[in-house]
Amino acid sequence: MAFIHDNFLLATPSAQRLYHNYAAAEPILDYHNHLSPRELAENRRFRNLAEIWLEGDHYKWRAMRANGVSEDLCTGSADPYQKFLAWARTVPHTLRNPLYHWTHLELKRYFGIDELLDEHTAPAIWATTTEMLASDELSVHGILRKFNVKALCTTDDPIDDLRYHAHIAQNPMGTIVLPAFRPDKAMNVHQPEQFNAWVDALEKAANLSIRNLPSLLDALRKRHDFFHQMGSRLSDHGLNAAPPVHGTENEAADIFERARNGQAADASEQQLFAGVLMRFFGRLDAEKGWTKQLHLGARRGNNTRMLARLGADTGFDSIGDCPQIDALGNFLNALDADNALPRMVLYNLNPADNYAFATMIGNFMDGSIPGKIQFGSGWWFLDQKEAMEWQMNALSNCGLLSRFVGMLTDSRSFMSYPRHEYFRRTLCNLIGNDIEAGLIPNSDALVGPMVKNICFANAKNFLNLPGVE
Amino acid sequence: MAFIHDNFLLATPSAQRLYHNYAAAEPILDYHNHLSPRELAENRRFRNLAEIWLEGDHYKWRAMRANGVSEDLCTGSADPYQKFLAWARTVPHTLRNPLYHWTHLELKRYFGIDELLDEHTAPAIWATTTEMLASDELSVHGILRKFNVKALCTTDDPIDDLRYHAHIAQNPMGTIVLPAFRPDKAMNVHQPEQFNAWVDALEKAANLSIRNLPSLLDALRKRHDFFHQMGSRLSDHGLNAAPPVHGTENEAADIFERARNGQAADASEQQLFAGVLMRFFGRLDAEKGWTKQLHLGARRGNNTRMLARLGADTGFDSIGDCPQIDALGNFLNALDADNALPRMVLYNLNPADNYAFATMIGNFMDGSIPGKIQFGSGWWFLDQKEAMEWQMNALSNCGLLSRFVGMLTDSRSFMSYPRHEYFRRTLCNLIGNDIEAGLIPNSDALVGPMVKNICFANAKNFLNLPGVE
Amino acid sequence: MAFIHDNFLLATPSAQRLYHNYAAAEPILDYHNHLSPRELAENRRFRNLAEIWLEGDHYKWRAMRANGVSEDLCTGSADPYQKFLAWARTVPHTLRNPLYHWTHLELKRYFGIDELLDEHTAPAIWATTTEMLASDELSVHGILRKFNVKALCTTDDPIDDLRYHAHIAQNPMGTIVLPAFRPDKAMNVHQPEQFNAWVDALEKAANLSIRNLPSLLDALRKRHDFFHQMGSRLSDHGLNAAPPVHGTENEAADIFERARNGQAADASEQQLFAGVLMRFFGRLDAEKGWTKQLHLGARRGNNTRMLARLGADTGFDSIGDCPQIDALGNFLNALDADNALPRMVLYNLNPADNYAFATMIGNFMDGSIPGKIQFGSGWWFLDQKEAMEWQMNALSNCGLLSRFVGMLTDSRSFMSYPRHEYFRRTLCNLIGNDIEAGLIPNSDALVGPMVKNICFANAKNFLNLPGVE
Repeated sequence: MAFIHDNFLLATPSAQRLYHNYAAAEPILDYHNHLSPRELAENRRFRNLAEIWLEGDHYKWRAMRANGVSEDLCTGSADPYQKFLAWARTVPHTLRNPLYHWTHLELKRYFGIDELLDEHTAPAIWATTTEMLASDELSVHGILRKFNVKALCTTDDPIDDLRYHAHIAQNPMGTIVLPAFRPDKAMNVHQPEQFNAWVDALEKAANLSIRNLPSLLDALRKRHDFFHQMGSRLSDHGLNAAPPVHGTENEAADIFERARNGQAADASEQQLFAGVLMRFFGRLDAEKGWTKQLHLGARRGNNTRMLARLGADTGFDSIGDCPQIDALGNFLNALDADNALPRMVLYNLNPADNYAFATMIGNFMDGSIPGKIQFGSGWWFLDQKEAMEWQMNALSNCGLLSRFVGMLTDSRSFMSYPRHEYFRRTLCNLIGNDIEAGLIPNSDALVGPMVKNICFANAKNFLNLPGVE
Repeated sequence: MAFIHDNFLLATPSAQRLYHNYAAAEPILDYHNHLSPRELAENRRFRNLAEIWLEGDHYKWRAMRANGVSEDLCTGSADPYQKFLAWARTVPHTLRNPLYHWTHLELKRYFGIDELLDEHTAPAIWATTTEMLASDELSVHGILRKFNVKALCTTDDPIDDLRYHAHIAQNPMGTIVLPAFRPDKAMNVHQPEQFNAWVDALEKAANLSIRNLPSLLDALRKRHDFFHQMGSRLSDHGLNAAPPVHGTENEAADIFERARNGQAADASEQQLFAGVLMRFFGRLDAEKGWTKQLHLGARRGNNTRMLARLGADTGFDSIGDCPQIDALGNFLNALDADNALPRMVLYNLNPADNYAFATMIGNFMDGSIPGKIQFGSGWWFLDQKEAMEWQMNALSNCGLLSRFVGMLTDSRSFMSYPRHEYFRRTLCNLIGNDIEAGLIPNSDALVGPMVKNICFANAKNFLNLPGVE
Repeated sequence: MAFIHDNFLLATPSAQRLYHNYAAAEPILDYHNHLSPRELAENRRFRNLAEIWLEGDHYKWRAMRANGVSEDLCTGSADPYQKFLAWARTVPHTLRNPLYHWTHLELKRYFGIDELLDEHTAPAIWATTTEMLASDELSVHGILRKFNVKALCTTDDPIDDLRYHAHIAQNPMGTIVLPAFRPDKAMNVHQPEQFNAWVDALEKAANLSIRNLPSLLDALRKRHDFFHQMGSRLSDHGLNAAPPVHGTENEAADIFERARNGQAADASEQQLFAGVLMRFFGRLDAEKGWTKQLHLGARRGNNTRMLARLGADTGFDSIGDCPQIDALGNFLNALDADNALPRMVLYNLNPADNYAFATMIGNFMDGSIPGKIQFGSGWWFLDQKEAMEWQMNALSNCGLLSRFVGMLTDSRSFMSYPRHEYFRRTLCNLIGNDIEAGLIPNSDALVGPMVKNICFANAKNFLNLPGVE
């Protein structure tokens, strides 16, 4: 039997039944990812697996480095085929890591390949896949059709003119493609040089002179309005922890002006400034009925030497362990007190905090919509079977799994769409185990709709994306 | 087969054998709950499920809010039957949450109902249960008989005159009902208005003028003596974390006098004051052979708006993640150094801290009694299968499960007695799995008594409650 | 069937096949323990189980205290046979604790005893084992032969003259015995009395006058060189958390001189000093290709009264919960920036931090060797089935299990060698479960070598110990 078979990950008859009858056919709503709007608009084609699979994939680079592979074959100037071979040699060493599953699920779903990748099978797999990648079916648009992607949301800077989104809107491709608003750079008052360059670009984008905090906020609001016109209904923020909420706009205005004059904010000033802006962003989202996403708990750029050499997001980030809950509770409470608490999805990177997160969301459900504050699906290092199960168990035990908006890829690669399948199999396996153990009733009428909703309808109803029905 | 059947939660033959032969018949010793002494004394009857089931149940309110139910139907003025219907509509959405199990276990054990609750079955279930609740069998005393509750301990303020306990003592009801001493309000020097009203009430209760710290301590001791006469053998404290131990009685006296004059203590003064009082309470308990309970790790009142509207304990509390262990270790060590370390039960709300708690208790076992410092059963959000298993696994791996004092309901509702059954089934299932996997010997002579002891005898021997044999 | 049988802990046919075909026959490389070099050199014989089993075993003492056994029978002056009986009475109460498994695995492997230990079987077991301990087979050298221990590393102070290691080198015994460098006492500037006595001893050992920080570092380097000549290739450090890295050598020099003059460093000075020394020790290890071990996360000496009475390492230590990751990340980064990052093994005592540790190691893999920074096997309270599985799952999901250097005993007792078997069975059981669930391919050609490597070859290749092939 092939490693990736019909019932991969589905250990019980109940799991198999749930997956095949309720989950498999649901369309995909990939509401958060880092795909390139340009490649989406231009319907990129990929020359080989090195391009579509290794390019920009810091998960694979980390595994290769841990396997003793030199940097040249990870991010360096080595020949693409040599890089692919280095990856192929690493794959058998990734047993029990999600990369082993993803690799073979992707080879199967994109190329119909059942062989296990290693240095011996690598040359034939390279040849087959290179040929197949030349077909329309594996262009960007072909891939989105193949995986039944109803809609997806990219991640965009407020200064972005969204030209590729406009192009896609005018040239529909079957999948609805929308932007999302990620204003992380608006808070970098501790790095005046980059900050000022960004504010200058914002001035142009908003067609507005930014002399002080009120005009900064005006410009951001204009961009938020523009994103809304372009169909955006989500914002996103990458933060180690939620910001403090004690700061006033006057204090923030002062910090802003000093940064504009080239004076770097210190760490606590930067945090105060971030807190003022995050409360403002909360109001923007709440007013327009958007959903706000917070990605919490990372410790980024751990390796200074490699950060200087390769830049950010190259595989030197990890899970932090600083306290999260007081700051998060205070932040949500401040938004609630301002009548500015939008729908939210909170992603947590340290599994030790799962239960605390799963209980925190329950403090701000106001009955306006099911699951108003969501505990987001297992993120980054937690986007794998063990940790997705932990997230779902925490949510189940401390809240309502039935109202969960489910999976997203968070990926930079067009090869990641099988992760929705991976999530759905894991979900059905978990619930199937419960049925077999008598922990939930053996009733498809009761359980089937819940599975179906978590795959698609919950996200659709919650996010309310234009055109997605 | 009914959802709640004879072997519910018991996955293996070993689990079933252990439960039915060793656990099921043991009486209940519910050594910590929040039942109303008045309702116990007056043998309250309940008119319908809204009264006995929804009244004051913040677990259900949280689930309803998360399900998009408006506050009016949770804590508001809506009609009781409408509230019940709103709950019934929510129940199918609680699949995988302990509420789904509790709901059906309670319907089964109190009313013999096998149907699953939802909006369709709700009207008939309402009618049946309303009729049955009118019978003696489901009065408070009837319920305690039905569930074989040998003894229970309520949670009482030192200022309470314990009149209902006195009434019960004079009119025995089969179940021994004892008070427990919870002096949390003695530490609220940061809220002088409420604090002074409370101290005034304490003056009256103790018949003693309280002008300074020594007289406060005298009054508390008098009340502790009185509680002892009334059969109390347990104290209880709700603390986010153990208090610091560096403060002196002189410093605390100064803080006390300022609070009596209306001057609020700041956060660190309040903590210092709490530390001095907690060491005093440790001495009281140690001198009289009581057991002290600490409930650690909550983050309460997260939603300021709802706290102002509904008050405390209405479903806006969650799990905190502040460090616990240094403070806890220092506190236990200070009591030990004072020769004032009573038997203790430490309850932990953040499962990430389970192992640290399970090892901390081992530092203060002095050989005077088995399991002198106990790691308490899964509490609040952790009072469910997954988290009870975690607590028992942590205790097993880092200490002695065999010496565990086991389950308590911690409940405000007379509908919670099946949670002892739920715990026992979970315990037997866990141990049964071990037997089937060969991890412990397949010997009922070895394992059966351990199960039996954890259900009742360990708590009985440890707590030494008057009249409980 | 005996409790300890051929397939103990091996729940599936795949697990059994992997263990018996790939794991069982591998030699042992016990690269970190606290065995006595003298007893190794002198080939100690043990008179009875009290000597070989209870002497110095704080795990057993903790269990006995938790079972209500008086200190006299743990560490006190009671008769050895009475102590053994007290332990035997405790054993049935340790069900589900690793002590129950270790006890019976040790009785089986050293003495062929299948009976379960309790107060009834204790006398016969005492008699049988006392007789058998008199034979050559159960002398220290006999035990090492019996368990196929290819090499072991003790833990030694830099001031140690390593005379027993020299004796062993001149009188080889089959097992290679090497020292390891543990300079914890070099950082105790907060306890000038002990510190100065230690520095005085270091002066003699290094034959060098130590007047200031540079001469302290010279002396330490000389000892490191000497340890290297004696075959040491590992260092080890017991730290609650990684030290800060902001301190300069000038600041450390000042703190050192004050300590030499009897002036105790305060807590932050001590930490600064430790940070400077730890960076120096990093350079020493990196230069010579050694492996550095960090043992992180303990909270030691919790019980002041018992610490004063019995000294350190007597069973009053536990798991801490202070944040680890910022300090650890900064420390590793500082070594990397200094080009002084040796191979490392990071041991973590709080399982809540497993994932954060498992991702942190990935930030400093430089491709120079597979698995350059290792996440060490479950340590101390985590050296048991549940927690070893957690550690292996975290490593698997966030890194490469295939490159894991595997088990070590960390033990003070010659009765601990079956823990390697215990680990291997746990490893094979975990992987066997995955095979049966289809989570990894059912291919012995793929999986068998990985198992074999984790048992021995990975550690051998990684540590590069002289004479170990």
